[in-house]
Parts: sequence; C-alpha cells; structure tokens
Amino acid sequence: MATINENYLKLQGSYLFAEIARRVKKYKEENPNSKVIRLGIGDVTRPLAPKVIESLHNAVDEMSKAETFRGYGPEQGYDFLAQKIAENDYASRGVKLDADEIFISDGAKSDTANIQEIFGLDNLFAVTDPVYPVYVDSNVMAGRTGEFDGKGRFERITYLSCNAENNFTPELPKNKVDLIYLCFPNNPTGMTISKDELKKWVDYAKTNKAIILYDSAYEAFIREEGVPHSIYEVEGAKEVAIEFRSFSKTAGFTGTRCAYTVVPKEVIAYTSKGEAHQLNKLWNRRQTTKFNGVSYIIQQGATAVYTPEGQKQIKDTIDYYMDNAKIIKEGLESLNIKVFGGVNAPYIWLKTPNSLSSWEFFDKLLGEANIVGTPGSGFGPSGEGYFRLTAFGSRESTEEAIERFKTKLKL
Amino acid sequence: MATINENYLKLQGSYLFAEIARRVKKYKEENPNSKVIRLGIGDVTRPLAPKVIESLHNAVDEMSKAETFRGYGPEQGYDFLAQKIAENDYASRGVKLDADEIFISDGAKSDTANIQEIFGLDNLFAVTDPVYPVYVDSNVMAGRTGEFDGKGRFERITYLSCNAENNFTPELPKNKVDLIYLCFPNNPTGMTISKDELKKWVDYAKTNKAIILYDSAYEAFIREEGVPHSIYEVEGAKEVAIEFRSFSKTAGFTGTRCAYTVVPKEVIAYTSKGEAHQLNKLWNRRQTTKFNGVSYIIQQGATAVYTPEGQKQIKDTIDYYMDNAKIIKEGLESLNIKVFGGVNAPYIWLKTPNSLSSWEFFDKLLGEANIVGTPGSGFGPSGEGYFRLTAFGSRESTEEAIERFKTKLKL
Repeated sequence: MATINENYLKLQGSYLFAEIARRVKKYKEENPNSKVIRLGIGDVTRPLAPKVIESLHNAVDEMSKAETFRGYGPEQGYDFLAQKIAENDYASRGVKLDADEIFISDGAKSDTANIQEIFGLDNLFAVTDPVYPVYVDSNVMAGRTGEFDGKGRFERITYLSCNAENNFTPELPKNKVDLIYLCFPNNPTGMTISKDELKKWVDYAKTNKAIILYDSAYEAFIREEGVPHSIYEVEGAKEVAIEFRSFSKTAGFTGTRCAYTVVPKEVIAYTSKGEAHQLNKLWNRRQTTKFNGVSYIIQQGATAVYTPEGQKQIKDTIDYYMDNAKIIKEGLESLNIKVFGGVNAPYIWLKTPNSLSSWEFFDKLLGEANIVGTPGSGFGPSGEGYFRLTAFGSRESTEEAIERFKTKLKL
Repeated sequence: MATINENYLKLQGSYLFAEIARRVKKYKEENPNSKVIRLGIGDVTRPLAPKVIESLHNAVDEMSKAETFRGYGPEQGYDFLAQKIAENDYASRGVKLDADEIFISDGAKSDTANIQEIFGLDNLFAVTDPVYPVYVDSNVMAGRTGEFDGKGRFERITYLSCNAENNFTPELPKNKVDLIYLCFPNNPTGMTISKDELKKWVDYAKTNKAIILYDSAYEAFIREEGVPHSIYEVEGAKEVAIEFRSFSKTAGFTGTRCAYTVVPKEVIAYTSKGEAHQLNKLWNRRQTTKFNGVSYIIQQGATAVYTPEGQKQIKDTIDYYMDNAKIIKEGLESLNIKVFGGVNAPYIWLKTPNSLSSWEFFDKLLGEANIVGTPGSGFGPSGEGYFRLTAFGSRESTEEAIERFKTKLKL
C-alpha cells in the first residue's frame, strides 16, 4: 500500500492569498461597479529592462540555428552569469566569491524551500514572526516540526517575534537552534537590520555551529548607507551563512524566473558523529540530481542586467517603485497612521488604526476605499494588528490609492 | 550544531558522465589530433522549431511593455499550455484529462526526483535495472533506502532486471512494493512495453494499492503501431499512475526547459491508518510551496509546439534523429553486433562484442574509433556487457561514426 507523506496533513489550509482572493471576489460580485486597486501581493508590474529584452531576443535567435543551439547546460548555471554575479553583486562590496559558490536557479522560493533537504531532520530551526511562509511550510513537509498549535505556530519551531516594540529586530533565541532563517530587507515588514545586529547572529552561529539561511531578495531596494546588502559583509559570515538572491524584484523577473544561491566553500555542517562536511558539495549534489538548470535563454536575459545600460535601467525601475513607497509612506503618515518599512524595501508595514485586527482592517479598506492589501496576521501571530501594502503598483494607482485613504477611509 | 542529511553520504561518487568526461579528456590530451565523435550523453543538437522561435520572440516582446507584461503566473503552469497538452497529447488518444491534472514544470528530471516527496518514507519501491539514476538517487537522499552494497545496488530497493533474456521487459516483483518507477520507451535500453505487459503492472498496482511512476519522456519517438504512448491508454491506469512528460527530447528543449507531470484526481494513496488522499492535491501543495512556475516566455514557446506548423516541424526533427537511429542500428547489425532499441526510441543499446565489459568496450571504442558512448554498467549491474549510443548527433557525425565502426574498430 502506497502511503503519503503525512507531514503534509499538518500544513494549514491554503492560504493567505486564496482567502484574500475569495473576499475580493465576493466584494466585487456584490459591488460590480467598484474599481479595486490591488496593493496586496508583492508582484512587479513594470516591463523588463530593454537590455534584458535585447539579450533574450538574441538568445532565442541562437536557439534557432544548429551552430549556436544550446542543449543541456550545467545544472548549477552558466559560468558567464555566475561570473557577473560574483563581480557585480559581491566583489564590488568587498566579498570574494568563486563562480562555483554561486548556484543559478529558477527562484529564491524554490531555493529557500529546497535548502532544508541537505540538513538532518533533527535540526532545530528559528524563523522570525511575521515570516515568509515558505520557510516554515517546507520544513513542515520535511517533518522537521510538530503539530500546528491552532494559534499560528508549529511545535518545534523557535519563533522570533518582530514588532514595533523591538523595532522589528529579532532577538537571539534563548534556546539553542541549529538553523536560522533571516530575511533583510524583510518581507513583510520592509525593515532592515544593521551590520552590528547582523554580527550578533553570525557570532551566535559560530558559537553554536549553527547555519544562517539569509534571504536578501530585496537588497537592491536599500537606499540608506550602512545597511548591509549581503550577510557576507559581516566578517566570518562565509563560514556560517548561505545567501539567497533573486532577479524577481531586482529586475522584474517574477514571471521570467531566475535567482541564485550562494554557498561558500567554508560553510560546514556535521554528521551526528561530528564529522564536518562542506554544504557547497551537498547543495551541488542536490541540484545536479534534482534540478536541470535554468533555461539558457533566461540566463542570457539575466546576464544583461549586469551591463552598464542594464544596471541603469533596473535602477530606474527600482526608483519608480521606491517613489511609490515614498508616496504611500508619506500619505499614510499624513493621516497619523503608524508606518514601518518603505525606506529600504518595497513593502510598507502599517499599524492598523484604532486597534483593528488585520482582517478587520482588510475588510474596512476594501469596503470603504476599494483597496486590497495583505493582513499582517497572515504572516504569523506577531503580524496581528499590522497590514502590508506594496509599492509595486503603477504610479497612477498608487496615487489614487492614497487619495482614497485620505477621502474614503473613515478613520 | 547543524547536522547534514546523512543520507547524502550513501550516494555513490559522481558519476557516470563525470568518469566518461575524465577518460575522454585524458585520451584527447594524449592524442591531440584525434577527432572524437560523441554519441554518449542523450542531448539534442537540432535547433528549436521555427514556430517555437517565433512564439518565444513574441512572448519576449510582451514582457517589454507594461500592458502585456507578465509577473507571477500560476505555479502549476498556465492554463493555455495545459489545455493544449490535454487536447493534443491525451484527448487525441482517448484519454480525458482536466487542465488541473497537468502540472507544468522545468523538467522531467526535477519532477521524477521531487515526486517521492509526497510519499511516506516507509514505502518500498522498485526500479528497473538498468535505470535512469535520478529515480534511485532522489530516494537515497530522502532516506528511503539502505546502504549501497558495493555491487551497484542499494538495500531496500527492489531491482527488476531487464536484459536480452527477458527482452528488456521487467517481471512483476516477488515481494510486495508500493511505488514502481517505469520508463517506456526506456532510457537507456530504447525498448518499449506492450499494452498487455503494461496492463499487468496496472493490475498489480490496483491489487496492491501501489502507485506507478511512469516516465514517458520518449513517447514522441514511437514509430510502431500498438505501442502505448501513455500509461493511461491502459484501462484503470488513472487510478494508480502518475505520468511524466517533457519537451526536452520531443521538441529539443533540453536547454530551454519545460516539461509536465500528469496527476489524475483518481490517484490515491493512504495514511498509515488507511485514510485515502488524492495525490493531485498533495502534488499541488508541493508545487505551490516549493516551486514558482516556469517562465512565461518558455511556456509560450512550448505552446507553439501544438500549432499545426509546430507539430510538423518537431516531427521533422524527430524523423531526422530516428533516421540516425536507423543508420546506427543497421550499421552495427551489418557487423554482427547485437543491437536493441533504436526503433521506437533515440537510444541504441548494444551487446558488447567478444563479451567485453562495458568499460572495456568504452576504452576500445574511444581508442580505436574515437567514438564516445555510454557504458551500460553505469545504469546498473544488469547493464554490464551493454553499451548505449544515441541518435541525437548530426547526420554527418552519425554516418562518420558508423564508417569508423566498420573500418577502425578491431572486432
């Protein structure tokens, strides 16, 4: 008799964005003339950079001729892209990486979900609360957690609360953990971590032989000086951290699909007997066995991001989104709504007015102003009483949304 | 202390193709003027179909304009492609599938490796011997096997020998198994299975509540009438089988990356208490959590395969490869080499002359004729004494290779 992986039954019913879609659909059926503005899901709206488009076309043409056709590429990604990443995203910040420490993939979601496979099931892990749900769910599926407690948390996970009281900076856990997921600039709060605070985590990991899984998918949105873009800017981090990056938000690749994960050769974990193993080798084995590489065409598109014109073009788009973020942040602040994030990240995390719950505010905002956002409680219990808006809309709809906040919402 | 997944340590050193590359490199260093022909790795060489190229260009252009730009798509793939697959690959053969039973992915390798995640670790599974290594290795990594026995097999796996004596048709296992990996037309043997033989497996699965994981990545190469293209041509198979397909060989997508997996809603597996669960829902949860969908551009390219021109163009390319297969098969047979496959598959599986071992023949063929093939023993102990050649080369190099077999190889 074939049996299922019963860990899947612990997962909580899907799901935040499905419930949002359900409520929006119901509202629109009841109010067919309403014009709903969506500032909910973190998806980009601006087209790909012209340099990327040009490079994609060229690569497609290469695939049309036997002389330049490409079949299987390396599962780890083409060296031409890995080299550009090493030079532009790391060497430029004083971080030296070899191309074979960079693994090109189809998405940071895949990589952050798959990375746990190379670790033992006995590892205890910590996540921030609120949190990107994939870190948690991928571990639930693997059997690294206990049951759901009915209040938003799973047994055997260490949750690190992030809220206004601690300025959304997680505190070191009191119990010992082996794996730590950190995401900065943070999704959903839009907040960053200082180099000094990050150093505490690197030191913790060294002391406890723990590994930090560092998601920096939003680093390109950092505007302020002194905010670390990569965990490897912290001395010694290469011994204890794996870093995830993506072209999704940086270059508008959410529908085009390309990302990468850095696994330095120095990072090691252990057998139960204490024998050290390079995680670079394990991840390489995982990727070569269970993945077949990103499309050649798409990797060529991603490479164009690193041309001087490509860099300028993606910066212009990021500027566009960050101007949206400013419009949202300042607009809400003018209404005395308490706002976090939006300075170094495309996410605005607001405290719901009048102590409304996240879902109460969702319904109010939809009903009164026809704006869709994301209830903070969907990202974990510490998100209760918060609400996420994103800066990825068009300028026009962003401005219209703020106008509605000012004129339609009954505060 | 972070611990590793120690199951990875059971994996056998990489790897067949790495060892081939090492020997070829050494030979070329010692014989710098030799012109080596590669008929080893199963990678295509012909360009993408013009209709696919056109569709890729159009999709790239859509990504260049805000009005037609696409961000995140459904993780399961776009409906426009799933519908075409349902109509063209299944309804045309009398198999009715809904679009939500078809999951678009980046590769059959990924899917055949990932599918085991939705099953319990207690399942016993069977593979043919010789076998595509990914089925085995993905289960080793998950912890579903014992140790390697040093002779090519892992404990706790049921191996089904396929050799000339049983016409490369696996026999039903004597012990009870829960999961069965089958691949027809087969990689590496190039042999097919009849509908009657396949029905035995479907009946076995029904009787034992087992699941068949059916890899039909090479179905487009079937030339003979009456050979099943899909396991769902067998009555009742929708209750017990998951099927894997790919555009890699069918449409030359090895470097472009698109595939799909069919999980009918009827297929069920059980909890340890005997509670039935739809695998369709579990795989959907797996994909939505650990995958983010295939590039919109690539999915549009794949959709063009189903236009009338696209169908004609990919058929022409398959004809080209199958003509190569015929040249290889007939050429070897004229030398009294015993040959299998090559009729309904792009693989030719030959019995090594003079009872040479697979690797002995590899070295002899490389040394005397400067031709690279794949030692059969690399696919499992039952592949010992066999050797794989592929039909994916150019016509010129294929003809040249056969000429060398005739004039250079000392038989």
